[in-house]
Amino acid sequence: MIRHSAVFRLKHPAGSSAEADFLHALRKLKAIPSVEQFDVLRQVSPKCEFTFAVFMEFADQAAYDFYNAHPDHVAFVQGRWIPEVAAFTEIDYVPLP
Amino acid sequence: MIRHSAVFRLKHPAGSSAEADFLHALRKLKAIPSVEQFDVLRQVSPKCEFTFAVFMEFADQAAYDFYNAHPDHVAFVQGRWIPEVAAFTEIDYVPLP
Repeated sequence: MIRHSAVFRLKHPAGSSAEADFLHALRKLKAIPSVEQFDVLRQVSPKCEFTFAVFMEFADQAAYDFYNAHPDHVAFVQGRWIPEVAAFTEIDYVPLP
Repeated sequence: MIRHSAVFRLKHPAGSSAEADFLHALRKLKAIPSVEQFDVLRQVSPKCEFTFAVFMEFADQAAYDFYNAHPDHVAFVQGRWIPEVAAFTEIDYVPLP
């Protein structure tokens, strides 16, 4: 199991329709085959600069790679993520023995 | 529901007994009442500087506050976290409507 996350903040004002539209488009990524346990969450720690996060799980690295290379993911990154995300970090987790 | 996480790296060498001992002590925090869904995970994204993470869930802010103030948590922070953690960030998540 690989738990992939991206924690981010948007260029859009909080509560704007542009923000809602981005989150709606983000949620469509859960339809990509190989994506499991998909969640979009709000980040609330005052110690962290980001305001949203997306979490998804993959069975293994091959499933993760399939998602990364999928045309719907590539189109989202180019068309929405790069132009609309102000800052982000990616954090990926695997179980410890 | 609040999903609390701390992503971190240790001062100890990877694979050392000091590292294992720290992770063992960290796992004991799951015994604090109000802590749910406790996980210690390895961070594997090359885009992220941290190597481990701890996740836990709380029913609400009162449950989170109870954990934060609990003597076992306070003792762990003072006795293990501050001296042994080289760098970390805290990220907390709540559901979006």
